[in-house]
Amino acid sequence: MRALVFRDGNLTLDREYPMPAPREGEALIRVLLAGICNTDLEIVCGYMGFQGVLGHEFVGVVEEIYGDVVKDHYSHLLGQRVVGDINAACYRPDCYYCQRSMTTHCPNRTTLGIVGRDGAFAEYLTLPVENLHLVPENVGDEQAVFVEPLAANFEIPEQVHLKPTDSVLILGDGKMGQLAAQVLPLSGCEVLMLGKHQDKMLLAEKCGVHSILLGSAEHSALERERRIAMVVECSGSSQGLETALRIVRPRGTIILKSTVAANSTINLAPIIVDEIRVQGSRCGPFAPALQALSQQFIDVQSLISAHYPLDEALAAFQYAEQKGVLKVLMRL
Amino acid sequence: MRALVFRDGNLTLDREYPMPAPREGEALIRVLLAGICNTDLEIVCGYMGFQGVLGHEFVGVVEEIYGDVVKDHYSHLLGQRVVGDINAACYRPDCYYCQRSMTTHCPNRTTLGIVGRDGAFAEYLTLPVENLHLVPENVGDEQAVFVEPLAANFEIPEQVHLKPTDSVLILGDGKMGQLAAQVLPLSGCEVLMLGKHQDKMLLAEKCGVHSILLGSAEHSALERERRIAMVVECSGSSQGLETALRIVRPRGTIILKSTVAANSTINLAPIIVDEIRVQGSRCGPFAPALQALSQQFIDVQSLISAHYPLDEALAAFQYAEQKGVLKVLMRL
Repeated sequence: MRALVFRDGNLTLDREYPMPAPREGEALIRVLLAGICNTDLEIVCGYMGFQGVLGHEFVGVVEEIYGDVVKDHYSHLLGQRVVGDINAACYRPDCYYCQRSMTTHCPNRTTLGIVGRDGAFAEYLTLPVENLHLVPENVGDEQAVFVEPLAANFEIPEQVHLKPTDSVLILGDGKMGQLAAQVLPLSGCEVLMLGKHQDKMLLAEKCGVHSILLGSAEHSALERERRIAMVVECSGSSQGLETALRIVRPRGTIILKSTVAANSTINLAPIIVDEIRVQGSRCGPFAPALQALSQQFIDVQSLISAHYPLDEALAAFQYAEQKGVLKVLMRL
Repeated sequence: MRALVFRDGNLTLDREYPMPAPREGEALIRVLLAGICNTDLEIVCGYMGFQGVLGHEFVGVVEEIYGDVVKDHYSHLLGQRVVGDINAACYRPDCYYCQRSMTTHCPNRTTLGIVGRDGAFAEYLTLPVENLHLVPENVGDEQAVFVEPLAANFEIPEQVHLKPTDSVLILGDGKMGQLAAQVLPLSGCEVLMLGKHQDKMLLAEKCGVHSILLGSAEHSALERERRIAMVVECSGSSQGLETALRIVRPRGTIILKSTVAANSTINLAPIIVDEIRVQGSRCGPFAPALQALSQQFIDVQSLISAHYPLDEALAAFQYAEQKGVLKVLMRL
């Protein structure tokens, strides 16, 4: 099959990559559409040390399920459109995390296109059937492919109690920031965005998010007043945490979303003196993301910058790396 | 009066320091006993840029209350032993923090012996009457002087839900760690301590805390198993956070307690990937600390390394800086 493979520092389109070999309990999925995430761009720069087929944001069709008992139980998935949780846990009885329903933290997990499991920029992929979620009829492919990064934003209200009376600031106007701008207002909060690009921030304005330019007088006022209960750091900059610390109010929360590969030098004293909660945040629950799309609370159409066929995957990656580009999709 | 003054980088015992001039709503307190905290030692190294009388851990007697209405209302404090919240808030109607009962974060606050207010290493100090707490009869001076740092440990269960089934690790065997070793077991948790000094860790063992030597095989097992729900970082080392990150379990919490003046270089990726909560923590509630002392849940006697009279304050500071020394008290 055709697949976009990262190996020994090189990204290549392999036209004769072997088909994935599903294990018992896994489904074979024909990929329809896949999205390029910043994590993919970071992996190409050496993050996680991954080798294999890239890609973890996808929508596809279940072609086969392996294992007789499992196939009986999950037969309703056959031929259906699905999205999938990217972490494949071990579910062993002696796994501390799996036994506590923390499967996304299972130390034996593989992660689609990131750790030990070939990903979605290929004609086919495999995932355990437990990871799959049916896509409702009224959710199109171009919406469904956003479920994974949307779920990562629904992880925030899983971790932190967002009060409708809170003021929340999104730091960064990129892909993750734009999705946060769609998800966070659902909690009833006042949502602000601090970013560099006026054109991208216009998109957030359409969701009722008030945008502020980095370095503007309004940015200074945020630092002076310090009334922001929560800052969601998705700037992708190694200075992001420091910027957030100057804005968040005492006893406030900073959500760290961007996996910045570089080490950051941080003065910890303000975290202690102001009793700040710095909360790391990664993958989230798929069900609320699918529900929000189905209920049309979320508009992802405006976040799509380009479509490429898999055959032009290298050009798609080059384009995705350009400044100002939001989501780049690949049609299989 | 006599007072220990830090000014222009010098610590001196001033025998003719002016008596404090209380404002309306403040009490004049004759200090009985005061304790040296690591923050005092850090201030002498330049932390917070404070100039004036040092000291914020004290027990004293209320000699006078200023303001007629306030005096009527608080007359029961006159002649009584008290301890005092060290943050004096503005309580103005336009103060965002005071109006939300976050008085320890009031941006206009002064802090006893730390910011803009002379401290407790003097014959007299002043504090607003709202800050004062009566010391129960069965709590001696040598116990009451520990209320402020004990309260800082009761701040932890104020911030984080400690479950009785959680395993909690205290990182550091110094003064703060020893008090944490007394407070945290009250939540029913299994409490461990990781430290450098076998003699000091014996004190924690007496509270039922299992102690582990840094660098031992048991320390390696902690890093391998990663089952610790919460690490309380009070090592005072700039490497403390990194050490904690290697031990805490995914989705666990690290409480930052030591105000490390130095900048730390940190790789933020593990915080995000493991969804760790890094929670800054400072001053805490006095009432539960006084109650725990009164109910004899806490034994502070074993943590006292030495007593000095105020006249030997400089020697007391020199002694407090020695390795292995726990609490040094000053008798006024």
